Amino acid sequence: MTNTIRAEVVTIGDEILFGQITDTNTQWISTELTNIGIRTVRKSSVGDQAEAILAILHEAHQRADVIILTGGLGPTKDDITKKTLCDYFGVGLVRNEEALALVTGFFEKRGRPMTDLNRGQADLPANAVYIQNDWGTAPGMWFEHDRGDDRGRVYVSLPGVPFEMKNLMTHRILPRLQAYFQTPVIKHKIIRTVGIGESFLAERIADWEDSLPPHIRLAYLPSFGQVKLRLTATGQDSAQLDRELAALVDEVMPLIQQNVFGFDDDELESVVGRLLKSKNQTLSIAESCTGGFVSAQITKVPGSSAYFWGSVVSYSNAIKSSQLGVKPETLAQYGAVSEETIRQMAEGVRKTLGTDVGIATSGIAGPDGGTPDKPVGTIWIACATAQRTVTRLLKLGQYRDQNIQLTSTYLLNLLREELVNQ
Amino acid sequence: MTNTIRAEVVTIGDEILFGQITDTNTQWISTELTNIGIRTVRKSSVGDQAEAILAILHEAHQRADVIILTGGLGPTKDDITKKTLCDYFGVGLVRNEEALALVTGFFEKRGRPMTDLNRGQADLPANAVYIQNDWGTAPGMWFEHDRGDDRGRVYVSLPGVPFEMKNLMTHRILPRLQAYFQTPVIKHKIIRTVGIGESFLAERIADWEDSLPPHIRLAYLPSFGQVKLRLTATGQDSAQLDRELAALVDEVMPLIQQNVFGFDDDELESVVGRLLKSKNQTLSIAESCTGGFVSAQITKVPGSSAYFWGSVVSYSNAIKSSQLGVKPETLAQYGAVSEETIRQMAEGVRKTLGTDVGIATSGIAGPDGGTPDKPVGTIWIACATAQRTVTRLLKLGQYRDQNIQLTSTYLLNLLREELVNQ
Repeated sequence: MTNTIRAEVVTIGDEILFGQITDTNTQWISTELTNIGIRTVRKSSVGDQAEAILAILHEAHQRADVIILTGGLGPTKDDITKKTLCDYFGVGLVRNEEALALVTGFFEKRGRPMTDLNRGQADLPANAVYIQNDWGTAPGMWFEHDRGDDRGRVYVSLPGVPFEMKNLMTHRILPRLQAYFQTPVIKHKIIRTVGIGESFLAERIADWEDSLPPHIRLAYLPSFGQVKLRLTATGQDSAQLDRELAALVDEVMPLIQQNVFGFDDDELESVVGRLLKSKNQTLSIAESCTGGFVSAQITKVPGSSAYFWGSVVSYSNAIKSSQLGVKPETLAQYGAVSEETIRQMAEGVRKTLGTDVGIATSGIAGPDGGTPDKPVGTIWIACATAQRTVTRLLKLGQYRDQNIQLTSTYLLNLLREELVNQ
Repeated sequence: MTNTIRAEVVTIGDEILFGQITDTNTQWISTELTNIGIRTVRKSSVGDQAEAILAILHEAHQRADVIILTGGLGPTKDDITKKTLCDYFGVGLVRNEEALALVTGFFEKRGRPMTDLNRGQADLPANAVYIQNDWGTAPGMWFEHDRGDDRGRVYVSLPGVPFEMKNLMTHRILPRLQAYFQTPVIKHKIIRTVGIGESFLAERIADWEDSLPPHIRLAYLPSFGQVKLRLTATGQDSAQLDRELAALVDEVMPLIQQNVFGFDDDELESVVGRLLKSKNQTLSIAESCTGGFVSAQITKVPGSSAYFWGSVVSYSNAIKSSQLGVKPETLAQYGAVSEETIRQMAEGVRKTLGTDVGIATSGIAGPDGGTPDKPVGTIWIACATAQRTVTRLLKLGQYRDQNIQLTSTYLLNLLREELVNQ
């Protein structure tokens, strides 16, 4: 099939419609559909009313080839998706023995009593293909339906619990959609950069970008101090696409090498973790204006205790001196936000906690505390190793949250550079 | 007007449709609409194509009284919302002098050159009411439109940048909607609880909940270790509703006093901050399994340097001894995850950093490191003051992120209780 396959993603539930819970499902689903070459043309949310659900089914049939519904499959009475699907397709509910066995097993395993409501979860519209849900009690459903016009449509109904929905999509629905629609092979490669703005990056790789063949597209995805370059290749031959993407990465890398910290799912904190591990080095952190945020990023990574020994969060100047050995006369002469202080903080934490590397932050995160000399956003970072100590001055903005987050990103990147260049 | 006012919230933009960015606007908007008594009946996302935007306008007109559009108002060519609104309403674009002055001022202030594209941002459909945007260059627009059927509709078009959209909604659009539709007065009161599950809470206040008058509704809003109780009162007299809500809070408080940490926008970290400040006490933190997360929560609060002096993140046992004074024989005999160790950590950080209060965490956040005796999720917390040291054992789950977040919540709550009971 060479035409574009169009999708509509529909969430069902009053709690989403009224803003009581955050809908993360639709973004995830449309990203996954994009990844297999299916184009989302509309996203919709409707409430738990039969007429609202019927209306969206009729509308979606007009504009989409595949309609993905999430939500409205719980055992309680206000969840009426299944009954409404029966009305829409003109069929009745039929108990599915496979589904019943799964629900029964689920309750037996947990030693919990089962009610008629629970048993009802095994009732499916007669035309449904049963899609086994190994992660919960509500089954997935797949329908192929022709309303008398020239072509059939695929309807997929999934539970709204994100964990169950994602597993069902990944393991059961996406492969089935690829097979049914014979979608092209889509391959992605993400290059992760840090410390260079989107427009500068675009300028630097303009010639390379212009040379991309039509079946390979490039997207810039910016976030706090980082830009992801995502290459998307469309074709028929998976191995061939992989080779093309690898060649393009090889071509562009010399232009941006110094700003690339990883690929695909890499995060800065896991990349520096791998570097420390491979070099058999240990890390300590002295944090002032970031208040523990950098340490929390480092320890988000499972297994970080292999290379991270500890931190001192020195919000008060007294602790900068007593715990990190910053000289009181340095603080008096240059202040806590100064190159002299940050150097002593990084070297001090490295020495006091006895690690190979010490990194540090000190600055004015805001909203208060700025002066004409050192406005809010003035932040020093440093990295001390056995070889040398490097310091950097950041001039950030006025928002506390953003300043903390950006400082963390730039400090982890400084650490990465020092480890790579050792 | 006594009928329900129905709203459709529409986001415009390929980047949302394809899942490249997270849409936080629609949830925020529908929550705010609910708060003024307007019922969202549909949420939709469409791409940056004229035909898709025209289609949703025609559809939304059928089912809603007010249609809120966000996105598609930037200066670049792919943002075509304004042109499409002209087609829909059958009018032309007219330059708005007020809007032009604002855009011009914006560029002058920043010393940046202005292009025709920027000037074009001041062009509005002829039937638009200009809504001044003090937070960016794209103006807001308000339309009252009758398509020849029995009643007019309100269309609102806002920029998609969340910061600009929220300010425009809060200060300009919501008051205007309330006046136009003469919506009833809606008042909210939120009671914030911690350390009690939703079902236990519901049981404890069942009689009180049953006694609520029909014009006051209760919602349970749970998140990591906390449950918000939200009372929503609907009526005509603002002062009267405030009095009724205050009386209901007075009634329920004796039943849940020990679990209530605040009201409305209060967060645990700001509540303990206020308590420390009012008691003129200082805080230090010793973190093991939370790795800096608790300190980062405390320092999220602007002005926290008034009471927070610092932390020691002691991931390694060596640092627990060298920096916090935990006895090596305690670590050898009981291990790092034990009541004996957590007590010495809290007392040690309090003494070493010289603060009035010291709090501490030590446990197994996972996914690795569990033993049959101490499975993943086994976590000790403690709070040491001049009067006494209190320890608590938490038995949490298997997910690292959740364990860190829940430990932080329970530790801040323990600190709160100790400060309140002093």
